[in-house]
Amino acid sequence: MSTRAAQPPRHHDVALHDRLVKTIKGLTMDAVEAASSGHPGMPMGAADMAAVLWTRFLVHDPEQPRWPDRDRFVLSAGHGSMLLYSLLHLHGYDLPLEQLQSFRQLHSLTPGHPEVDHTPGVEVTTGPLGTGFAAGVGMALAERILATRYNRPGHEIIDHFVYGIVSDGDLMEGIASEAASLAGHLGLGKLVYLYDANRITIDGSTDLSFTEDVGARFSAYGWHVSEVDGHDPEAIAAALEVARVELSAPSLIMCRTTIARGAPTKAGTSASHGAPLGAEEVRATKEAMGWPLTPFHVPQQLRDELLARRSALQATREGWERALAAYEAAHPQLAAELRALWADQLPAGTLEALDEVTFEPGTELATRQAVTKALSALVQAHPTLVGGSADLSTSNGVSIGLPLQLREQPEGRILPFGVREHGMAGICNGLALHGGLRPYGATFLVFSDFLRGALRLSALMGLPVIHVLSHDSVLLGQEGATHQPIEHCMSLRLIPRLHVVRPADANETIGAWAHSLQRGRGQGPTAMLVTRQGVPVLEGSRRDISCGAYVLWDPPQQISAQVATKVPVDGLHGILIATGSEVHVALEAAKRLHADGLALRVVSMPCWEAFEAQDPAYRDEVLPPSITRRLSIEAGATLGWERWAAHQHGLDDFGASAPAADLAEHFGFTVDAVVARVKQLA
Amino acid sequence: MSTRAAQPPRHHDVALHDRLVKTIKGLTMDAVEAASSGHPGMPMGAADMAAVLWTRFLVHDPEQPRWPDRDRFVLSAGHGSMLLYSLLHLHGYDLPLEQLQSFRQLHSLTPGHPEVDHTPGVEVTTGPLGTGFAAGVGMALAERILATRYNRPGHEIIDHFVYGIVSDGDLMEGIASEAASLAGHLGLGKLVYLYDANRITIDGSTDLSFTEDVGARFSAYGWHVSEVDGHDPEAIAAALEVARVELSAPSLIMCRTTIARGAPTKAGTSASHGAPLGAEEVRATKEAMGWPLTPFHVPQQLRDELLARRSALQATREGWERALAAYEAAHPQLAAELRALWADQLPAGTLEALDEVTFEPGTELATRQAVTKALSALVQAHPTLVGGSADLSTSNGVSIGLPLQLREQPEGRILPFGVREHGMAGICNGLALHGGLRPYGATFLVFSDFLRGALRLSALMGLPVIHVLSHDSVLLGQEGATHQPIEHCMSLRLIPRLHVVRPADANETIGAWAHSLQRGRGQGPTAMLVTRQGVPVLEGSRRDISCGAYVLWDPPQQISAQVATKVPVDGLHGILIATGSEVHVALEAAKRLHADGLALRVVSMPCWEAFEAQDPAYRDEVLPPSITRRLSIEAGATLGWERWAAHQHGLDDFGASAPAADLAEHFGFTVDAVVARVKQLA
Repeated sequence: MSTRAAQPPRHHDVALHDRLVKTIKGLTMDAVEAASSGHPGMPMGAADMAAVLWTRFLVHDPEQPRWPDRDRFVLSAGHGSMLLYSLLHLHGYDLPLEQLQSFRQLHSLTPGHPEVDHTPGVEVTTGPLGTGFAAGVGMALAERILATRYNRPGHEIIDHFVYGIVSDGDLMEGIASEAASLAGHLGLGKLVYLYDANRITIDGSTDLSFTEDVGARFSAYGWHVSEVDGHDPEAIAAALEVARVELSAPSLIMCRTTIARGAPTKAGTSASHGAPLGAEEVRATKEAMGWPLTPFHVPQQLRDELLARRSALQATREGWERALAAYEAAHPQLAAELRALWADQLPAGTLEALDEVTFEPGTELATRQAVTKALSALVQAHPTLVGGSADLSTSNGVSIGLPLQLREQPEGRILPFGVREHGMAGICNGLALHGGLRPYGATFLVFSDFLRGALRLSALMGLPVIHVLSHDSVLLGQEGATHQPIEHCMSLRLIPRLHVVRPADANETIGAWAHSLQRGRGQGPTAMLVTRQGVPVLEGSRRDISCGAYVLWDPPQQISAQVATKVPVDGLHGILIATGSEVHVALEAAKRLHADGLALRVVSMPCWEAFEAQDPAYRDEVLPPSITRRLSIEAGATLGWERWAAHQHGLDDFGASAPAADLAEHFGFTVDAVVARVKQLA
Repeated sequence: MSTRAAQPPRHHDVALHDRLVKTIKGLTMDAVEAASSGHPGMPMGAADMAAVLWTRFLVHDPEQPRWPDRDRFVLSAGHGSMLLYSLLHLHGYDLPLEQLQSFRQLHSLTPGHPEVDHTPGVEVTTGPLGTGFAAGVGMALAERILATRYNRPGHEIIDHFVYGIVSDGDLMEGIASEAASLAGHLGLGKLVYLYDANRITIDGSTDLSFTEDVGARFSAYGWHVSEVDGHDPEAIAAALEVARVELSAPSLIMCRTTIARGAPTKAGTSASHGAPLGAEEVRATKEAMGWPLTPFHVPQQLRDELLARRSALQATREGWERALAAYEAAHPQLAAELRALWADQLPAGTLEALDEVTFEPGTELATRQAVTKALSALVQAHPTLVGGSADLSTSNGVSIGLPLQLREQPEGRILPFGVREHGMAGICNGLALHGGLRPYGATFLVFSDFLRGALRLSALMGLPVIHVLSHDSVLLGQEGATHQPIEHCMSLRLIPRLHVVRPADANETIGAWAHSLQRGRGQGPTAMLVTRQGVPVLEGSRRDISCGAYVLWDPPQQISAQVATKVPVDGLHGILIATGSEVHVALEAAKRLHADGLALRVVSMPCWEAFEAQDPAYRDEVLPPSITRRLSIEAGATLGWERWAAHQHGLDDFGASAPAADLAEHFGFTVDAVVARVKQLA
């Protein structure tokens, strides 16, 4: 049971419930009809469970949609967006009726699927099924981590639930299975999902494709499972009460529902899933439930009732504010730390911690090893930098000796994601959405394919998730083609708002962490691509890579016996542009070519997106437009490099299983091969 | 129980088992040691179950590794490749001992993870966990579909099992969950997986991340589950016997094992998972099991015993050949059809069926609707063109009125994948690997992110899977940013050996099907990107798109009142290169610009990969190098288009929820916007 002192009233008001449910149904039908597109069935079928949850359990404050200790509500079945928009509007969030009337229109606050930071009160962008489920797991985990760190006896300032509505489709998705298994393992007792078991998907009855025993499956994951009539408010409320008391396991309340309930001919059919009901059916539905035919009808009495309830919600929030003040008095330092985290600020000293990590030019280490060093320093300074690996901790360089997060060890800061890449990325989204934490998740770059759905959502939501992706090229060696990324680096660069950083050496890896951490909420995620193999620490490599690309080396020019300078731009034969483990190869090649009389600049380009954000003058300084003889060198797909270099040195087919040195030789990522290539161009 | 008459002997030979297990362990340790890399623990822990399966159950013929009715063996835990290589070598496949000695070396037949069509006897490329599991489900489904169609009373010519070894890691992956749920739903009784439950993953004990009740979960999916001591050959054999009799459900035999069993200090630890044991531990292990220290020791007696067994296997295969001959006599037409399918030939009339599907220029239909027409025609001509959608049948255009594949309807040709994209793609891989079928799977393009892991494997394996991806741009409209692909088209183009076809209209969609179907095993998959919205059938669009790109329109030139010709190349102002739904926009823009005095060629480029495979003369004819004023037009990411066009018209940020026409206006995919853009360039 939640230990929060003040709770809003929880008595059942039959008439209010009825009015709210009918209003939700009416608004949904009308909005979908007005848009000539949308999904009416889900909101109509789930209105009962949502009404019970929102009027009797959910702790929130429409006037302060972001107060940190609110309960979170996840509409994983995001296609039922009108359910959420109706609830937000009716509860007094800043979402006027006109917005519902412009459902699915350009510039409206009511897009087809809910988008966080676009519509007040929406906690997570959903629609791609299963991803909301995973995000909710992340939110519940965030609550537990923060509560463990910051609560003190008598000061339970972090104490909230994560509720959600999940659908048949959500539960078929692999990402939900992965996240569910982990949530059960961790015993996330404050996670409560209402399962809208309407047994209908777009293609028809779930009998056609989904006949597993969902309840037994979730029990096997370690969830607390119950089953109720999803149209019986008292039964739903009773199940929620029990779920809230069961704090040792997440809860799945299976609600048997009828999709589009109340629609005379379309209820219980897939016809109601993803298309307007049609004017005739809407009319008949409204008549059957005794509802005015006026579009977008909202009874004034309902508005009044919900407004009255708002003061209770507000009182709860104010009670919490007082509790926070008391906490602040008793634990000023913790409170200050927490406030900064809630404000998405980096704790003082976070970036400075990186200054302690230094590397000697000429020494050699894998950039994944530099990750270990950077992360080890950062976690000392940043108390809620949390994350882990999809079962490749040491390989990815994120094994840093901190305790694991376990059921009996809620203070653990390393998250044991297991072999669950997509679940990991989805959970990281939830951790970031919750606020107060900075999450990272790690796997091999090639397995970014397994988590791309959730990674893209981190970009769409602008979440500052750090994706650590090691073994970043064919040069990982003997694991072979199944494990060797080819297209992955470029294909990540294609994702809007994602920054892809491929550091050349340990110094740039420090820069990658600094860059990632400075990208806050609203800016987006970072993918950090690091090597398995050792690479030299380069003379002149930068620890601030916010420029995206820079001149690592220009060939020297002997002016006289005493004075050396750099070859002027108009004396340059060309430019080598490289990233990651190919930078030191480019540098060696340039030096060798210089000895042969060819002057080539070497540009290290760890982050395209950051470079593109520089002003044109800087970009032209690094890559003077007059110098068109340019060769890109990156051990991966060449497609896309045409943007910066007329010639490309890369790999456009799958790799092979062999020691790294043999592969470098075979695929041409050696100094010799680059020198030869440049001479061909000359 | 399998109805196949002749079965190889199944008596237990304790000495043979012991010798085989020790030999596998010895070869594994030595190969990993020689390579200084690899995963010794899994083969050593799973040697017992594998030995029982291979010597007492698996029906195969090392001299005819591809005979169609062999049992399939799937090593889903592909990191245990030395287990499979040892078994293949010892059973007499064309994999000499030298190949095991060059484990993980360049050009060897023994890459770090098994690769189909690279190593004789390997049925599927595995390593990315969970994907082998899903492929096995596809193989078992293929068996059922083919058996239902081709077997006749007294002629059970298709009748085999699919066996596999799956690991803890496999069962944590979402793709395995999805495939398992569907396999249980369909009741694929000839699928039998041995679960190597060693409770160890790379990061340590599964207690840290994976404590769910796996057996209960699989029971919930509808699987037949048993549990045995994985080092007790009799118990394993007994469980396999029971599993084979249980033909109404797939079977999971949970084998409790010790990873690296036999290694004195590393058995049961994650240290043995992914690194060589070390010379000392290898020596101690061999001594403990009474084994010669000579590296790569294979007892002659074992060779002799397995050779003797080969004749029994051969007899089984020969019995099947006789059965096939009898079938051929009784059902010559079916037999001929089947032989062609086994030979990966398209049934006669397949491509011709497309000729029946015609469209009137000037009419308008979505290319997904053209998919429906093409597919409807093709399934009449091609009896084993099977597939379905991840619960978006109608949306994707693959709803063609054929019966669904269901437990009680094994003749169904439409596969009810449910909301399981990754499972779908993994199962399609298995269908293609089995042979005899041509699979397709459909979803929204944006959800290609959810199946990319398995799609990439279809490319790596060269499997002719057809991925139908509809709703191919922001112009899908009101579903909004979560459903609107931006980077997906280009990011698919980055995958080696995958052909991405984005047809401009219904005619090119016909061409896309012909192109896809003509890509056979070894060539690779095709992704077909089709529109939600209507697009006009264009005058001059091609139904043969194997050229990849072609001149759709050149502006006419009035030579005299009587004679009109085309503007010569040196009279062209520039070229518009477009794909998909942007081709008709480019064409209209070019016509408008021509009226304004600017002569622009319009090139439709439905398939980059096919165009790149053309000879340079053709490419230069379509895109004359002298014409550098080129504008690409594609409603998606511009990155990459620099390859063909100095200027790009696209969309590099996320979309929005609005009617398609409003989005076209907003994002500039209108004739007006393209005309304006071209005039800017002029």
